[in-house]
Amino acid sequence: MALIVKKFGGSSVATTEKIRNVAKRILREKAKDDQIVVVVSAMGDTTDDLIALAEGITRNPYQYAREMDMLLTTGEQVSIALLTMAFRSMGQDAISLTGSLAGMHTDAVHTKGHITDITPDRVHEELNKGRVVIVAGFQGTDEKGDPVTLGRGGSDTSAVALAGALHADTCEIFTDVDGIYSADPRVVKGARKMREITYQEMLEMARLGAGVMQPRSVEMGQYFHIPIHVRSTFTEEEGTIIREDYTMVEKGFEIRGVANDDKVAKLAVLGIPNTPGVAHEIFSPLAEANIAVDLIVQSIRNAERNVTDMVFTVASDDLPQAKAVLDKVADKLHATGVQVEKNVAKVSAVGAGMLGNPGIASRVFGALANAGINIDIISTSEISISCLVRGDQMKAAANAIHDEFFPKN
Amino acid sequence: MALIVKKFGGSSVATTEKIRNVAKRILREKAKDDQIVVVVSAMGDTTDDLIALAEGITRNPYQYAREMDMLLTTGEQVSIALLTMAFRSMGQDAISLTGSLAGMHTDAVHTKGHITDITPDRVHEELNKGRVVIVAGFQGTDEKGDPVTLGRGGSDTSAVALAGALHADTCEIFTDVDGIYSADPRVVKGARKMREITYQEMLEMARLGAGVMQPRSVEMGQYFHIPIHVRSTFTEEEGTIIREDYTMVEKGFEIRGVANDDKVAKLAVLGIPNTPGVAHEIFSPLAEANIAVDLIVQSIRNAERNVTDMVFTVASDDLPQAKAVLDKVADKLHATGVQVEKNVAKVSAVGAGMLGNPGIASRVFGALANAGINIDIISTSEISISCLVRGDQMKAAANAIHDEFFPKN
Repeated sequence: MALIVKKFGGSSVATTEKIRNVAKRILREKAKDDQIVVVVSAMGDTTDDLIALAEGITRNPYQYAREMDMLLTTGEQVSIALLTMAFRSMGQDAISLTGSLAGMHTDAVHTKGHITDITPDRVHEELNKGRVVIVAGFQGTDEKGDPVTLGRGGSDTSAVALAGALHADTCEIFTDVDGIYSADPRVVKGARKMREITYQEMLEMARLGAGVMQPRSVEMGQYFHIPIHVRSTFTEEEGTIIREDYTMVEKGFEIRGVANDDKVAKLAVLGIPNTPGVAHEIFSPLAEANIAVDLIVQSIRNAERNVTDMVFTVASDDLPQAKAVLDKVADKLHATGVQVEKNVAKVSAVGAGMLGNPGIASRVFGALANAGINIDIISTSEISISCLVRGDQMKAAANAIHDEFFPKN
Repeated sequence: MALIVKKFGGSSVATTEKIRNVAKRILREKAKDDQIVVVVSAMGDTTDDLIALAEGITRNPYQYAREMDMLLTTGEQVSIALLTMAFRSMGQDAISLTGSLAGMHTDAVHTKGHITDITPDRVHEELNKGRVVIVAGFQGTDEKGDPVTLGRGGSDTSAVALAGALHADTCEIFTDVDGIYSADPRVVKGARKMREITYQEMLEMARLGAGVMQPRSVEMGQYFHIPIHVRSTFTEEEGTIIREDYTMVEKGFEIRGVANDDKVAKLAVLGIPNTPGVAHEIFSPLAEANIAVDLIVQSIRNAERNVTDMVFTVASDDLPQAKAVLDKVADKLHATGVQVEKNVAKVSAVGAGMLGNPGIASRVFGALANAGINIDIISTSEISISCLVRGDQMKAAANAIHDEFFPKN
């Protein structure tokens, strides 16, 4: 007997036919004594449709965040009711539970809530009656009982956190890709599906641009020691298991994967005095504006006049706000100016094996040099090396690094 | 200062534009210190759309009644969120509450629930903050916290019961007619809008076929002593107030109204032995099948052989089931047979003034006789006289009675 939490996203339950297929598949794979909890998102475009309705009432409905949550939580409530009917019409007893009924407690940060506690008594009670339990993802309720949504990737987080609270054996995330790849297959031709990856490596991959899993749900899995099996909704083959440590050895790969991210922009504050505290004067107003800064390099331009340039990257979405903040800072510091460069991308090699193996960094740089790609900024962490390159060279850079470590057979 | 509960049905909130209009109207009519609670139904066809979705999953989704409630309660949740946004975008602070958050407790009879208790602490709390409170009609939660819908007319019942629990000054029911008429205006040309009607008369009108208000909500108003103001969504003029007693005298009308109902069928069990207990043998299996019987007449057909006929009416919807039950009974009683007549209708005069005024019955019969209409069965209560007539004469019969008591000027 196993207790398994299975999560299906919106595209997996986009139509009534797909909902029936989800139920069929689960029943096909279910061993007789398995206890199954299914976490589902809203059907396909439901959330967008609901947002459009709200925009018919007022131009910027998100300013009424509590009411957006009241509105949006209906999307999953529809899915859970329909999926439960599908199970029951196939002869499998089942019951639907909203986030509230499943005991998902959150803070009161509407539209961007965080799970604060899970009291899954009702879930256990229903499982013990032999029922498949279908839980609304993406939602919980605050102390007042008001509905709260969890924000981006929230359904994955719901599923993994619930698996933790239930002491489940595993949490399966069904998605439109069939696992975690050693690189984005749309960018790197030879990208390979991995059978396993550690939480830490997955988090680093996600931070550096790999989009399959939201970092919060991976952290949740790490916290609760729940293996997360990322697999395809459309095929029944094994995907990738994210877990604490490897259970098998996939030989010969010093890195686990290559991540790439072209949603970055480079900013340079030029000609600033090279005095103590200048970095603080630049970065603290950015932090106050909630703008994350990555890949920082400070270069001395003119040692005689003691003038320096500060170069760093931000997410593309933050660029307009970052530019506005920096223009003010530049004025204050009597800097020469602020330069913006959008045609940049970040390419990273990730792997726990990198630690204490300096040869890897030099192979990354060598691979890029051989491909004729210039590196603008370099940044390293314990388990990753990131290089800023020209945006139009991102694909070539990712392939060069991948080929170096995952040679084609 | 007044505390007013206002209920708007699905057609009043069918589009985002209509939702905005509802908010505008309420704000226009609101005195500065008024405390306003708005009870709303699901938008227009939402409930039908949700049922259609469920039918895409399984042929008869209502067999999974709990899941239907999980599904259907989302309809009102969408309306309350949108109406609340409309108020807030107009500068009026407001908050939406599901049935659960408003403290609407029900039994666990899914899709046909009954309100068992109301604990409206949160409603008071929000009103005291100066907010308009928007509550989802038609729904509550059972002891487990599971969503339950109230069945037909449930939003009216929610509104009146909530008004009672809040000790509101009045409950306004906004609908697509502008009040209660002395007869159905589609049937009787001279039908007049009444300014007032008692709970008792309204209940009798509803029981006898007048469709504006569901009996349960009128009973609820009577129980809580809440005046119910039935009025139009589309005009601002006064409608009809349903209350305990008249506050004004509308002279010269011995009856309050004429009701008509063609959704009835006549059944006759013919040639049964006229012995004690035979009525019981016929009506108890019908009661067991939950079929309500109306207008009963037993006529001696052949006194010598002591054989009788039992004639009565049932709702058209119950006819197939009633026929099946009676065929068995007829066999058992060695009756001659069971006859069915669908072309019948019930026309009734209703009014508390009827009590102790025998002249009214004779004027009803006289009016029908003068119009050349034959009466098949007669039934009376303390405040009504009902006549079964041929279905194709219903309109003429209703007009004849109405003209007798509400003479044209």
